[in-house]
Amino acid sequence: MKIPIIICGFGNVGRAFGSLLAQKALLLKEQYDLEVNVRAVVDIRGAAVAGDAPIPMEKLVEFCSNGGQVQDFAILGRPGLTSEQVADMVPASVWVEITPTNINHGEPGLGNIRTALYHGLHVITANKGPLVLRFKELMEIANARNVRIFYSAATAAALPTLDVGIVCLAGTHLISAEGILNGTSNYILTRMQEDDVPYAEALSEAQKLGIAEPDPSYDVEGWDTANKLVLIANGLFGAGVSLNDVTVQGIREITPVDIQKARENGKVIRLIGKIQRDEEQVIVRVAPLALDRNHPMASVSGSEKGITYSTDIMDRVTVTGGKSSPLGAAAAMMKDLINLAAQRRECS
Amino acid sequence: MKIPIIICGFGNVGRAFGSLLAQKALLLKEQYDLEVNVRAVVDIRGAAVAGDAPIPMEKLVEFCSNGGQVQDFAILGRPGLTSEQVADMVPASVWVEITPTNINHGEPGLGNIRTALYHGLHVITANKGPLVLRFKELMEIANARNVRIFYSAATAAALPTLDVGIVCLAGTHLISAEGILNGTSNYILTRMQEDDVPYAEALSEAQKLGIAEPDPSYDVEGWDTANKLVLIANGLFGAGVSLNDVTVQGIREITPVDIQKARENGKVIRLIGKIQRDEEQVIVRVAPLALDRNHPMASVSGSEKGITYSTDIMDRVTVTGGKSSPLGAAAAMMKDLINLAAQRRECS
Repeated sequence: MKIPIIICGFGNVGRAFGSLLAQKALLLKEQYDLEVNVRAVVDIRGAAVAGDAPIPMEKLVEFCSNGGQVQDFAILGRPGLTSEQVADMVPASVWVEITPTNINHGEPGLGNIRTALYHGLHVITANKGPLVLRFKELMEIANARNVRIFYSAATAAALPTLDVGIVCLAGTHLISAEGILNGTSNYILTRMQEDDVPYAEALSEAQKLGIAEPDPSYDVEGWDTANKLVLIANGLFGAGVSLNDVTVQGIREITPVDIQKARENGKVIRLIGKIQRDEEQVIVRVAPLALDRNHPMASVSGSEKGITYSTDIMDRVTVTGGKSSPLGAAAAMMKDLINLAAQRRECS
Repeated sequence: MKIPIIICGFGNVGRAFGSLLAQKALLLKEQYDLEVNVRAVVDIRGAAVAGDAPIPMEKLVEFCSNGGQVQDFAILGRPGLTSEQVADMVPASVWVEITPTNINHGEPGLGNIRTALYHGLHVITANKGPLVLRFKELMEIANARNVRIFYSAATAAALPTLDVGIVCLAGTHLISAEGILNGTSNYILTRMQEDDVPYAEALSEAQKLGIAEPDPSYDVEGWDTANKLVLIANGLFGAGVSLNDVTVQGIREITPVDIQKARENGKVIRLIGKIQRDEEQVIVRVAPLALDRNHPMASVSGSEKGITYSTDIMDRVTVTGGKSSPLGAAAAMMKDLINLAAQRRECS
């Protein structure tokens, strides 16, 4: 089966995705009978549009990694071509949206995803913004057009939070989810607890290692966790919540005294994103919590992530691990693409 | 979407499955647009076959739980009707095989599954025997008939070992899997290590709690783990192995000295089922191993189970938990049914 796709956004994650498609072409063909055919790559400046043959991804990635722009790529480059124009002129069945996340207005991803859906394309996205801001609207458009939106890469990348909920726990009633969804905060907390390093020092160490951003507030104040939680709560719990509905508390104010006190009680502090059904309501909250040592999230340490679902008929199911790098996000998108294709193949 | 099914085998797990379908009918309808329509229930003695209306599962479960036989159920009972006759005369699209596992010859499950596949029915099974003995043959029949075999319930019930490999890790190259797949052994080992209880005492305690069988050899000698491993190795690693290819060592000979020695080295002993790619070969082995305390399987304690997959592009992904009771197995089969229906719905 050939799947023609359009890639929108070609930064670190976009290029990792492009490389991965090239690297895995043989496996995709042999194991899944799948030929992913990149018909266009578009970013804010312009596009590269395939001729008869698909875009040679290895070459495009190399070109862009050496400072080239997509729009200047050999004879395929089309300076100034917009994503809307690409959606109009390039026949494809999947739109892969990998533009940077903006949590305030969601652009340019929000407009791009709307356009793709209106053109009848399935969407695979790593961009949290549009779905956090407009989950209901986008799902309604997708349903009306009979296409689907996959967003594994936006909900903890290679940690399979959504798949586990949708596929592995199908038929259960989800009572709650408790997750460590931000590797940066977890790294800092782990260092503070295991090695008695104070917050500021652990943070600066994480920054040196590239685990924390120069401005770490999005991670350490709990917003990254909150965004992922909104997607999981809406996608799995049908919660219909927005970021405003989430109570968010970060880890900045955790002191060595807190750490010591937790330790004396045999507990360990983790930044937990929690979704809890409470009669008709779904409560979503991010806060540092002192967990018993036998809580499944207590052993998730360093920059690892994890999530525990409590269900009615399958008891508690926990999943941990999964790479958090651009490669992990790219792998999550490729997985979404394979699963999308598998569902389509059942029909042929 | 209406799915007509036939249930074959109506012991503890079969009745749990029947009850679950009744209990979840509303959720199945509302959340998955799915009406599971039980057209026949058949066991070794005879069958109950639906008239115009589906078989009322709550009533049949109650009848059988009070000592009644399926074949004697009200006006629907058909004494002496065989599973083959049921397959011939009852139109359905899914065959749910829940007869007891026999690891030597696979019957009656093996014959039943063959019959179902030849009749063009999808198969969902909790019975390990047929697939452990005849994996390749059954998959080939299924492929030729364009139907599928789902066997979540045969590979650790509500712990989603297969789904995680097939769906969540799609596109990765699986390097290895290391799992605790038998709750009985893990319970005994945990008691031995955490509370310094000797093997015999821990075993007899597990028997009193109903965690271990009166004859515990299948569990404690590693055969249950080996059977599940064969299914996972064949299903996910394309290993083409049989039980004869598995090196199996159980936990009977673990002594307090072994426990003490592991503890001194900061390790913990677990009965690990391991699948490892070694160039072109896939090595499958069951043995008690001393794990570092930060190994993801080290924190799986008591009768819990878990599995860790190592991959090329997603790093390590671990899943733990999931109920091990008849309800857990029933929930796993219902999950398979929902996922099967979801794929069919994509096509409509």
